[in-house]
Amino acid sequence: MSRVVCVTPNPAADVTYRVTSLLPGASHRVGDVLERPGGKGVNVARVLHALGVPAVVVAPLGGRAGAGLAEALRAGGHAVRPVPVAAETRRTVTVVDDTGAATAFNEPGRALTDAEWSAVVAAVAEELADAVALGVSGSLAAGAPGDLLPRLVATARAAGVPTVADTSGPALLSVAAAGPALGKPNADELAEALPGDDGVSGAAGRLLALGAERVVVSLGADGLLGVSAAGGGAGWRVAGVPGVAGNPTGAGDATVAALVRGLVTGASWPEVLADAAALGAAAVLAPAAGEVDRAAFERFLPTLQGQRLP
Amino acid sequence: MSRVVCVTPNPAADVTYRVTSLLPGASHRVGDVLERPGGKGVNVARVLHALGVPAVVVAPLGGRAGAGLAEALRAGGHAVRPVPVAAETRRTVTVVDDTGAATAFNEPGRALTDAEWSAVVAAVAEELADAVALGVSGSLAAGAPGDLLPRLVATARAAGVPTVADTSGPALLSVAAAGPALGKPNADELAEALPGDDGVSGAAGRLLALGAERVVVSLGADGLLGVSAAGGGAGWRVAGVPGVAGNPTGAGDATVAALVRGLVTGASWPEVLADAAALGAAAVLAPAAGEVDRAAFERFLPTLQGQRLP
Repeated sequence: MSRVVCVTPNPAADVTYRVTSLLPGASHRVGDVLERPGGKGVNVARVLHALGVPAVVVAPLGGRAGAGLAEALRAGGHAVRPVPVAAETRRTVTVVDDTGAATAFNEPGRALTDAEWSAVVAAVAEELADAVALGVSGSLAAGAPGDLLPRLVATARAAGVPTVADTSGPALLSVAAAGPALGKPNADELAEALPGDDGVSGAAGRLLALGAERVVVSLGADGLLGVSAAGGGAGWRVAGVPGVAGNPTGAGDATVAALVRGLVTGASWPEVLADAAALGAAAVLAPAAGEVDRAAFERFLPTLQGQRLP
Repeated sequence: MSRVVCVTPNPAADVTYRVTSLLPGASHRVGDVLERPGGKGVNVARVLHALGVPAVVVAPLGGRAGAGLAEALRAGGHAVRPVPVAAETRRTVTVVDDTGAATAFNEPGRALTDAEWSAVVAAVAEELADAVALGVSGSLAAGAPGDLLPRLVATARAAGVPTVADTSGPALLSVAAAGPALGKPNADELAEALPGDDGVSGAAGRLLALGAERVVVSLGADGLLGVSAAGGGAGWRVAGVPGVAGNPTGAGDATVAALVRGLVTGASWPEVLADAAALGAAAVLAPAAGEVDRAAFERFLPTLQGQRLP
């Protein structure tokens, strides 16, 4: 079965608590408890699943929380390849009050051993044997080897599998240098990693020069900008959907899922960008990360058109 | 092995998060994560263990959180008799900032079936066969049978095992009517359950009239007041330890543990009250519920003396 491999180096069990209002120093009775698998790679896999694209989540999972996360993914119809590790998988707790305000408490990622990280790479390499694409998403836990993400991209490249990489910080540069099919920073992450006065297009072009085949920069409400090495660095732009407000968490993951799908189906560059912008906006309207508002997606898609930049 | 049975109808896995400061609406990186078994009966068992009194925790436990709680208790050297239930055991999350302020989020107790509650009573009945005392502590989860606590007290009474009961609300009255060896409300709980203008002694006397053999009322920083049916309702009083500040959570549970120990050793009434007041104050100085500052206890004890009320 050809499927997309979604590697999640820093997974979490995401817990949401409903309270009437949050008062620091007080004791709160939680009205409603929701627990679901989290982590950017998990969200990408969930959106792919909703789009009908088969995916498998590869993640280091430990302890009862890790076992629960794997079980919840499987119960949701997702394929998962857990890499057993000693450290208990972390949780995040988000407290949502009656005004909708969200206060998040993110446990730190637990340190893995070098052997455990190597087992993650080996599991990805095995899954790549019959994969159509690799998605590499998310931050690294403290203590993760600095070369983990470029190693994953290089492993996929050696297997002839294209990678979509969504990361930030110094990893953005080393991942681009490893030659992914597509890198997807947001504008802030790009400016932080590649400061300069040549604007978003210029910085995206420098990521191409490092080794990425395509770069898509998310501009938040302003849509997406894409450049491709094959097009001689030519840029395309798709505007954002106006007036979309909601939960931005996971919009980037939905955009990545659309880019992966575009890579797999071989859609044209303007089509892929419009698809990714519409799906990102549809994710903002969905209540939880990893979900998209399908009806909104169908509504948004015809209104968007990739435009070639002069 | 003769031991104390500590029944915990509403256990929880207590999680503590350390953050720099809590800002509603913001995302917080948690510095430090501590997880430990919680629930009032668990805290009583932990203090008894620290005092060298063998105890077994009987609690409905479900899911991964429940299994983790049982495992953590055993790892801490505690005996536990889990009653398997379908519902996942709840968590509490307490966020402590750099000023020491604590903000708590308490998940609701999960509903158990009638058969599961009956299994809790049956497990307690079995453990009572070689028990020296029963401790009944804590609130009931939503949907628990209203007669659960008096049923437990009656079961112990039928087995010839004395009960120390720490509860509140309407259960305080039905538990007293079931004839426990000792009831331990705090002054607010007592006033709420038995309003009147006859003061704390008067209300405590009415609990004796209902059926309790002894009643100890905790007066917070003002110490304890005890009355006993055997003494014709005569009252004793022990003052609080002055100037004790810290974490009051669990002070009541330490007081209950001392009262249980007094019942088991047959210590005199003024001795038991002094012991309970000193241990409660020593618990306030310990960082977590279920712990006591042993050195402080040894220091406090000789300064306290039960006084007969006129």
